[in-house]
Amino acid sequence: MNMLEIITRKKLGQELTEAEIAFFVRMAAEKLAPDYQLAAMLMAIRLNGMTDRETACLTLAMRDSGDIADLSGIPGVKVDKHSTGGVGDTTTLVLAPLVAACGAPVAKMSGRGLGHTGGTLDKLESIPGLSVSLSVERFIEQVKNIGVAVVGQTGHLAPADKTLYALRDVTSTVDSLPLIVSSILSKKLAAGSDAIVLDVKTGSGAIMHSLEDSIALAESMVRVGHLAGKPVVALISGMDQPLGTHVGNALEVKEAIDILSGRAGGDLLEVSLTLGGYMLRLAGVAETPEDGAERMRRAIASGAGLEKLRQMIAAQGGDPAVCDDVSRLPQAAVIRPVTCGGAGYVTSMDTTALGLAAQAMGAGRLRLDDTLDYSVGFVLRVRIGDRVEADTPLAELHARTEADADAAERAIRAAVRIGAEPCGRRPNFYAVVTAEGTRRLEENA
Amino acid sequence: MNMLEIITRKKLGQELTEAEIAFFVRMAAEKLAPDYQLAAMLMAIRLNGMTDRETACLTLAMRDSGDIADLSGIPGVKVDKHSTGGVGDTTTLVLAPLVAACGAPVAKMSGRGLGHTGGTLDKLESIPGLSVSLSVERFIEQVKNIGVAVVGQTGHLAPADKTLYALRDVTSTVDSLPLIVSSILSKKLAAGSDAIVLDVKTGSGAIMHSLEDSIALAESMVRVGHLAGKPVVALISGMDQPLGTHVGNALEVKEAIDILSGRAGGDLLEVSLTLGGYMLRLAGVAETPEDGAERMRRAIASGAGLEKLRQMIAAQGGDPAVCDDVSRLPQAAVIRPVTCGGAGYVTSMDTTALGLAAQAMGAGRLRLDDTLDYSVGFVLRVRIGDRVEADTPLAELHARTEADADAAERAIRAAVRIGAEPCGRRPNFYAVVTAEGTRRLEENA
Repeated sequence: MNMLEIITRKKLGQELTEAEIAFFVRMAAEKLAPDYQLAAMLMAIRLNGMTDRETACLTLAMRDSGDIADLSGIPGVKVDKHSTGGVGDTTTLVLAPLVAACGAPVAKMSGRGLGHTGGTLDKLESIPGLSVSLSVERFIEQVKNIGVAVVGQTGHLAPADKTLYALRDVTSTVDSLPLIVSSILSKKLAAGSDAIVLDVKTGSGAIMHSLEDSIALAESMVRVGHLAGKPVVALISGMDQPLGTHVGNALEVKEAIDILSGRAGGDLLEVSLTLGGYMLRLAGVAETPEDGAERMRRAIASGAGLEKLRQMIAAQGGDPAVCDDVSRLPQAAVIRPVTCGGAGYVTSMDTTALGLAAQAMGAGRLRLDDTLDYSVGFVLRVRIGDRVEADTPLAELHARTEADADAAERAIRAAVRIGAEPCGRRPNFYAVVTAEGTRRLEENA
Repeated sequence: MNMLEIITRKKLGQELTEAEIAFFVRMAAEKLAPDYQLAAMLMAIRLNGMTDRETACLTLAMRDSGDIADLSGIPGVKVDKHSTGGVGDTTTLVLAPLVAACGAPVAKMSGRGLGHTGGTLDKLESIPGLSVSLSVERFIEQVKNIGVAVVGQTGHLAPADKTLYALRDVTSTVDSLPLIVSSILSKKLAAGSDAIVLDVKTGSGAIMHSLEDSIALAESMVRVGHLAGKPVVALISGMDQPLGTHVGNALEVKEAIDILSGRAGGDLLEVSLTLGGYMLRLAGVAETPEDGAERMRRAIASGAGLEKLRQMIAAQGGDPAVCDDVSRLPQAAVIRPVTCGGAGYVTSMDTTALGLAAQAMGAGRLRLDDTLDYSVGFVLRVRIGDRVEADTPLAELHARTEADADAAERAIRAAVRIGAEPCGRRPNFYAVVTAEGTRRLEENA
């Protein structure tokens, strides 16, 4: 067996064997094959696809290319959550404390953002003193003690994905269903949880722009999870506008604290409750996702959710007082309101452009070694469907300089379209995909 | 413009612009893009194809990536010939002296073989003393003086092809029509001739196994040649069995000398006469290809063809006496006859396996730096359609050792299938493709 034979078979559209896929993954993980052969193979997979069986083999081989975290020391059913990524998407910071407060352990390994805005780790690091680099032992100990920890990947998880992901980025092979599925699930399976809730975004700011592609991705991940012996539930949620109102690292932490304090609501809360409700059901704590969401609402009202966040921040060396005084979070030098400048209805948003605007302000990385400015970003004051006047607030900019604020203002104005015709609100969820099948949420359409 | 955008467009099946193709070729020629991006691009081209316009742009950009030979100092219409390659395919050594003897200049740059058996240059180098490394000036001078020279590529021709060809070999992207067309024609156009005769092989030993694929390749090359302003004629010839009876470097020189001496005939002679006939017509020397072939037959009968080969060998420093005494060519240590071993009809041959048998004996290279043994190979004593008995000679082996001869005997026996049912002879030509259209040679079918 050699790489050339395997590339040839995939080029001809043939189904690869488990042994061939394992060979390819080993070549990638141990860097035994030259990059040009891996690149040719990735393009052949992108253009000729893979069967479910091949995608499952690829996922499991990538999972097995490195360490697999052992969370068996933590009592209870560990449910992980993964989002395919969007703008203003802070669900982890809202739901992790709430799910833990409801009695299900949350042992979460997150990634860093290489995209429009920072990832969950970057947001957490905007809290003064907080560390996301815990040893496996301390990570497990913290979950046993307080029920929740959100940290960076510990150990040597799925090294094949590291090689392949870097190559996909520079060979135009990111948008391949089997490659997306195997990349996400191999890391999640290696992270050792018992079940997984996936939040698959759809819309202008998502990896998949069309609903059909998003559903296909969700179905593939659920099927492959099933073949790997782990229950996986995927929700298709909208990303036609930023999920939360706040975009930027410290700003998103502030919104999460506002929600856990009961001071704020909106789509970020609703989506967090639904995703967390499914986590609580898979963990065996709630009877139904709705029951789980209801328990989380009570944990907000009682203050138990905010207290759990306070405990987590303290356990990870951060300043828990931010939960009671959000002004302790990094503050931008320039804070400026922007008005809509014209009357009408908010008809659509270019969510990717909004993410890029935040990135340009310093909230996201262009390269892995870029340093973030945690304080910058913006608060969006409108949602699709809103009726606005010229003086209605459009956004509040948090920038390093007046020039940065000027550029962000132009970008946000261009990205938010205001038209004459009334326009309906966007649903938060479009479909739920489980091993039993796909249920479209017509009531939202 | 950058490579990632161009890869993305081809990945999505879009037609690239001339500027985009020129950018890609410059990246390859000057090694400005990393190999993994070129590899991804090659696989995208292999799987999504190219239009005729794209293929022509690619060919011309590759031609223009280096020097273009200036043959204008040689009077007359210079007609080049290229074969897509086969086993026992020695047409250049037969037709170059004959075409020159008939009055058309033959200024031919050939390649080295990286395949089953040596290329034309390797065959010529089996003649003691002969050099194929001439300066451009000496090359042109020789053609002006004696009308013929066959040398290795001089100067810096089509460097983009060099990069891309090496990558295609190791990324399973050799079998792409636009990549084959652009690779062959860019070099031929850069070699400076006025017109080109292409010999496109079809069958078990050819780059294209099916007749339809071979015709598609021929048609594409003729169309692209037309777009490049050069008349191109392509003949589709059979490669279901070795063309000549001799396989191996010095053995193939011997067969060419035997033919030019009038001592031998067969398919190699007939194919050489047809290809050379088209060359003489394109050069304006003959009225029709048939007229050209008839002139070449007369050049054999008169000895003018052999004399031209003698002159060429002498001009390039070789021993011209080989033309009168073929025993002066390198001789193998072990020469052994092999009989058919069973009665019946020769029904088919695995021509690639026969080529690999010669390669294993030392006649061909596995790697570019392998050294050839010019003396080894074999003479095949049967053709498809022959009625044979158990004691009918099958082949004559020319090997370095008895063990090599044993291995070759097993390989040849396995590659030549003898069945009970009578079987028709194979035609030499299947079709002729010119700018006017494709004519299938039904009389041969």
